Amino acid sequence: MRKTVDEYLASGPGFAEGEVIERIESFRRRRPRLRDEFVTMAHGAGGKASATLVDAVFLEAFRNPYLEALGDGAVVTLPGGDRVAMSTDSFVVQPLRFPGGSIGRLAVHGTANDLAMTGAVPAWMAAAFVLEEGFPIADLHEIVADMADAATAAGIQIVTGDTKVVPRGAADGMFVTIAGTGIVPAGRRFGPQGVCPGDRLLLSGSIGDHGTAVMLARGDLGIDADIRSDTAAVSPLVELLLAAAPSTRWLRDPTRGGVGTACNELARACGHGVLLREDRIPVRPQVGGVCEMLGIDPLYVANEGKFIAVVAPEESAAGLAALRSHPLGADAVEIGEIVAEPAATVVMRTTLGGTRIVDTLVGDPLPRIC
Amino acid sequence: MRKTVDEYLASGPGFAEGEVIERIESFRRRRPRLRDEFVTMAHGAGGKASATLVDAVFLEAFRNPYLEALGDGAVVTLPGGDRVAMSTDSFVVQPLRFPGGSIGRLAVHGTANDLAMTGAVPAWMAAAFVLEEGFPIADLHEIVADMADAATAAGIQIVTGDTKVVPRGAADGMFVTIAGTGIVPAGRRFGPQGVCPGDRLLLSGSIGDHGTAVMLARGDLGIDADIRSDTAAVSPLVELLLAAAPSTRWLRDPTRGGVGTACNELARACGHGVLLREDRIPVRPQVGGVCEMLGIDPLYVANEGKFIAVVAPEESAAGLAALRSHPLGADAVEIGEIVAEPAATVVMRTTLGGTRIVDTLVGDPLPRIC
Repeated sequence: MRKTVDEYLASGPGFAEGEVIERIESFRRRRPRLRDEFVTMAHGAGGKASATLVDAVFLEAFRNPYLEALGDGAVVTLPGGDRVAMSTDSFVVQPLRFPGGSIGRLAVHGTANDLAMTGAVPAWMAAAFVLEEGFPIADLHEIVADMADAATAAGIQIVTGDTKVVPRGAADGMFVTIAGTGIVPAGRRFGPQGVCPGDRLLLSGSIGDHGTAVMLARGDLGIDADIRSDTAAVSPLVELLLAAAPSTRWLRDPTRGGVGTACNELARACGHGVLLREDRIPVRPQVGGVCEMLGIDPLYVANEGKFIAVVAPEESAAGLAALRSHPLGADAVEIGEIVAEPAATVVMRTTLGGTRIVDTLVGDPLPRIC
Repeated sequence: MRKTVDEYLASGPGFAEGEVIERIESFRRRRPRLRDEFVTMAHGAGGKASATLVDAVFLEAFRNPYLEALGDGAVVTLPGGDRVAMSTDSFVVQPLRFPGGSIGRLAVHGTANDLAMTGAVPAWMAAAFVLEEGFPIADLHEIVADMADAATAAGIQIVTGDTKVVPRGAADGMFVTIAGTGIVPAGRRFGPQGVCPGDRLLLSGSIGDHGTAVMLARGDLGIDADIRSDTAAVSPLVELLLAAAPSTRWLRDPTRGGVGTACNELARACGHGVLLREDRIPVRPQVGGVCEMLGIDPLYVANEGKFIAVVAPEESAAGLAALRSHPLGADAVEIGEIVAEPAATVVMRTTLGGTRIVDTLVGDPLPRIC
């Protein structure tokens, strides 16, 4: 049943039937329309353009409740009662090796972390390689050894795979795609629906290390800095947190798009505001310096061994202590809280005492960092 | 305990202790060493070089019983008792559209069929895209629509995914990697260990359609022929076969490397011989003609909607009838049988009455057909 805007303006609450409310709500939830005719680098950067592409192309075509949740992975329930998480990521990072890691370690860690964010314990992986003709077998051996090492350390078995080769010039060395599965222990359910004003945001450590390390490793910026990627599997840290803070409502690893974009996804999904405190967000001096030189905000730089957790206020201190008890979480901090207003928005209380809106990443300041 | 060759030659059966027998057997099972220094197109063709690469690089590094089975996918058992199959494939086919299909349909069918070959009912998929900057969004829409269509038709949900973009020239349009999972119904276990002399080989239809269709679609051969890819999800056909022939021991979809290579994998894995009858192998006249013109053997050309099954002799007729009752299996035939000698080898009784050895595919006659 149609209603005019005049009717709407003239009426108070309760003006529209359920169906109309639903249509208006669904319109409000819509993201910007995809206007591009061609794929741009920004579509792969994890920010606004990526979200628009996912919405307009993939969600539109594949629509189902698992995909619509837009989590780091999907959790399906099997007839026997087990809940299994699935996640996948392609890795196209350049260069293939960088201080602190390689495409091999990154591929295993990245997929393991996406699984951990659903509450799953990562268990099995499938690895698919696209190799460019002429790629050195010795390099392949090294990268595969890194994958094996990272998988073993994380208690994961690589159980199946595939290899394709394309002619010289049809790919850039190698691309790896990992799909992972893991079992979600009974009772664990995370999601934005449980998040409420007053909840606290914990961050497991410093931000921007991975993105800046890879950027500098390309060598074309002529900047020297002592920065290593933070690539790591965070599952052990997640388990410590969940034991200490069973109220944990929501988890996300801030990879492409960084902490700024992850918080925006949270704000949009839960409908509340996210208030970040600039003075608490840990940025290593070297990382901060490089970001200043390049004119980029570390809040949008990718991390590969960090996560954000939303926990109840009364469990924040215990959660933080649990994170800090592990070497990977030594720099964990409470970076902010959930607020009622402004709704569905991220704001930052700056070091100087002002407040600014933190938007989703726009453009692609750091291409091919994962 | 060491034994000399002289001792061996001088002795009859039973000469060696179990441990020595095991070492000799493991030596016999060894595949050729990887001598290449660089990746070649043959490493992606699904034949001898592919098997060597998988052995020397991936199996060596990731070694575990799931991977060592070298099946089309891995089957893991969950705490609740469900057995879940996982499989993955990257798709780099060129061109992206060809008569009878597209990279989108192929990606869903290929992964669904790998799952079906483990006995699983395909259920959930993860889709990861690597896109080249400048790729037309309209083409992406079409390919994604094909994927959605193929998934819906096969009863599969695409539940999670990923998109990466690389700069112009760093990839060839688009690559898609699909990982799939499905549940294996209780009691289903396929494997080469159950295969024994006397068993029959059923093939679900004509061979070589997919590879020749894609090859001709590139347009650079200047050959016109009415050939369409056979790309299809074969799960319904597998279920019909299993209902009629519960003895089914082993299933394989002869994709890269074709029926010739799939039969060699069977022979090596079960240790028995595979006897094929040339006059029974269905090759459409147009496909046969193109293969003759190009000097390639249809036995090594990829199929994407066919499978080979090994069944007990007494159930062969019922299995065949079940396959033929479905449009996808209308041309199903019994193409041969398992024989005791020659061990671990594939032989073909030719139309002229002779016998020749059928080896694994060597080289890469048809690059990038999936």
